[in-house]
Amino acid sequence: MKNKRRGLQTVELQNPPKIIASSTTVGPKEGMGPLSEYFDTILEDDKNGKETFEQAESSIMYSTIKDSIRKANLSETDINYLFAGDLLNQLTSTNFVARELDIPFFGLYGACSTMAESLGLASLIMDGGFAKYVVASTSSHFSAAERQFRFPLEYGSQRPETAQWTVTGAGAMVLANEGNFPKITHVTTGVVKDYGIKDAGNMGAAMAPAAVDTICRNFKDLGRGPEDYDIIATGDLGKFGKQLTQRLMMEYGYDMSKCYIDCGEIIYDNEKQKTNSGGSGCGCSAVIACGYLYKKLMAGEIKRVFLVSTGALMSNTSSLQGESIPGIAHGVVIEYDKEGVM
Amino acid sequence: MKNKRRGLQTVELQNPPKIIASSTTVGPKEGMGPLSEYFDTILEDDKNGKETFEQAESSIMYSTIKDSIRKANLSETDINYLFAGDLLNQLTSTNFVARELDIPFFGLYGACSTMAESLGLASLIMDGGFAKYVVASTSSHFSAAERQFRFPLEYGSQRPETAQWTVTGAGAMVLANEGNFPKITHVTTGVVKDYGIKDAGNMGAAMAPAAVDTICRNFKDLGRGPEDYDIIATGDLGKFGKQLTQRLMMEYGYDMSKCYIDCGEIIYDNEKQKTNSGGSGCGCSAVIACGYLYKKLMAGEIKRVFLVSTGALMSNTSSLQGESIPGIAHGVVIEYDKEGVM
Repeated sequence: MKNKRRGLQTVELQNPPKIIASSTTVGPKEGMGPLSEYFDTILEDDKNGKETFEQAESSIMYSTIKDSIRKANLSETDINYLFAGDLLNQLTSTNFVARELDIPFFGLYGACSTMAESLGLASLIMDGGFAKYVVASTSSHFSAAERQFRFPLEYGSQRPETAQWTVTGAGAMVLANEGNFPKITHVTTGVVKDYGIKDAGNMGAAMAPAAVDTICRNFKDLGRGPEDYDIIATGDLGKFGKQLTQRLMMEYGYDMSKCYIDCGEIIYDNEKQKTNSGGSGCGCSAVIACGYLYKKLMAGEIKRVFLVSTGALMSNTSSLQGESIPGIAHGVVIEYDKEGVM
Repeated sequence: MKNKRRGLQTVELQNPPKIIASSTTVGPKEGMGPLSEYFDTILEDDKNGKETFEQAESSIMYSTIKDSIRKANLSETDINYLFAGDLLNQLTSTNFVARELDIPFFGLYGACSTMAESLGLASLIMDGGFAKYVVASTSSHFSAAERQFRFPLEYGSQRPETAQWTVTGAGAMVLANEGNFPKITHVTTGVVKDYGIKDAGNMGAAMAPAAVDTICRNFKDLGRGPEDYDIIATGDLGKFGKQLTQRLMMEYGYDMSKCYIDCGEIIYDNEKQKTNSGGSGCGCSAVIACGYLYKKLMAGEIKRVFLVSTGALMSNTSSLQGESIPGIAHGVVIEYDKEGVM
C-alpha cells in the first residue's frame, strides 16, 4: 500500500452527478431470495420468452435500461452516452442491447466490477461537463455464464463450498446534473491485483486483494475509515471472500465489522437456496446497487455508501493455460441526505 | 441520419490533450508490409518467445506500453489511468498486461474500434481535468484471434476474397496536458449500426454503415466535409469495406476520394501477402494510428486526421445463433501544426 504514485487515486467530483433513476430486473431465483422487495421486475421465466440464454440476458438489460430512462421522464434520444458491459465473450449481451438503442455507446469489460466501472467512468464524464444524461448498466445470466465459463448445465457438476452462483439480473442508473437524488461524490479506480489464486471455484479469494487495495486507497486518499460509511459493499466476493477481505482489512488496521456487506453474500439465502458462498456476476453488484442500496438511500435509511464492485479477470483460455486469476475492484461513493444538504 | 438527439454527438475539447509519445510493435508479416518503416519494433517471432499466442499478445502490448511511457520520459507511477482492451474473450491479453502495471485500469471492449474508443475516453478524462497523464492502448494477434473467432490454424481453411487478416501488433499513446505535440481536438462517439450482414468473412460490409454514420455525424456537428481533413482513416474495413463506405458517403453527398484511407487496406500488400481484403483486429488501427499517422503528423506531412476505428461486435455464440453482426465506429480528430499554432 505504499504510495509512490501520481497523487491521489480517488477523484472528488466537483459537481457530483445525481442518480435520478434506477431500475433492476432479476431472475426467479433472485426473486425468491431475501431481497426480493428491492427489485423492480422479477422474471417468472429466466429465458424471458427468448430462445437462448444470451438473448434472454440482452432482453433483460434492454428492458431495464428502457425502464430507467422512462422513470427519469426522459427518452432514449436525451441520453448522451451509454456505459455498459457484461460477462460474455465480446460483450455479446450488451452489444445487442446497444444495437437497439440510438445512444453513443462505450463498451466496457471489468468482469463483475463492471457496474462500478461504468458508474465511475460515467460520473467522470458527467463531472467533466460532457453530458447532460448518461446511463450506466450491466447484466449477467446464470445459464449463459455457467456454460461459457464452467460446464454445460446438463453435466450437473458438483460445486465446491467456495463456489458462487452467477446472478441472473440487470441494473441500470440514469445520471444527471440536477435534482435532489443520491449523488456520486467520489470515484476510486482499481488497480489489478493477483496473488496467485488459480481456482475458478474460489473467485472470492482471487478478488479479495483487489477489494482491499481499493478500499484502503479510498480511506487514505480521503482521510476516512470504515466509520465514515453507513455501508461498504463489495461486489461479489461471497461469504468466504468477504471473510478474507475483512481479515485483510484488520491487518491494515481497519475494523469493517459494523458497516461491511458483500452483494454476493446477501442476495441469496445461501443455505436454503444452495448458492454456497453466494452470488456473483456483473448483475450481482448491479442489482444490489440499483435496487437495495439505491432504495435504502432514497428512503433515508442510509446516507453514505461505498460501492466496491469486484471483478475476476480470467478467461477460459487463461485458466486452461495455467494462469492465475487477476482481480480488480472499482469503487464509487454514493451519498444522499434526504432531509437536507450534506 | 436525422438528428432528433441530444445536441451534438461530437465533443470539442477545450484543452485538447497532447499525444506526447506513441509506440508500436508489429509481427513479422506486418513488418514485411509496405509501412514497415513506421513501426518501432518488428518481431522476428510472432510468439515473441512465449509459450502461447495469448501470452505473446500480452507481452507485445506490455512492452509497447512500457516503451511509450519511456519515450515520454515518465515512469509507470506517473500515469493516472490506463484505457485498454483487445479482441480476446474477457480481454485476456489486456488483463494480464494490467496485472503487471501499477496503474488504475479501465478495461474496454469495442472490438477493432478499441483504439479510438480508448483514445476518445482518455481524451475526455484528460480534458475534464481528472489526469495528468493517461495511456491508451490496444493489441491483437493473428493466431490468437483466428483460433478464437474462426478455425484452428491447422485446418488451413480457405479464405474468401472479402476475408481480412488479423494484425499482430500493439499500439500505445501517452496523453498529457502540455507540450507541442499532435493533439486530440474532437471526439465523435459511435452508435451501433446493424444492417443485417451475417458473414464473418465480410466484416468490412458489416462495419461500413457504422463508419458512415460516425463520419457524417462528425461532418454535421462541426460543419466540416472531407476537404477539411488531410486524412480520414477508417479502422479496418479492408478493400471491400472501404469501397462500400466511399459509395455510401457519396450517397450522402460527400466525395471522400481525395483524403480517405483504410488502415486495413494499407497495412499489407494484399496481393503479394495474400491478405485478401486487408488487415483487421484492434491492433490494425492501433499501429496505423500510433505509427503511420502519428509519424506523418510529427513530420508535418499532414496536419489534421480523423481516425475512425471500426468494430464488428459479434461473438462466436451470436454468430452460431444466427445473429447478424452489429458494427460500431468511434472517431477522434488529431491535429498538429509543426510550424505554428493552429
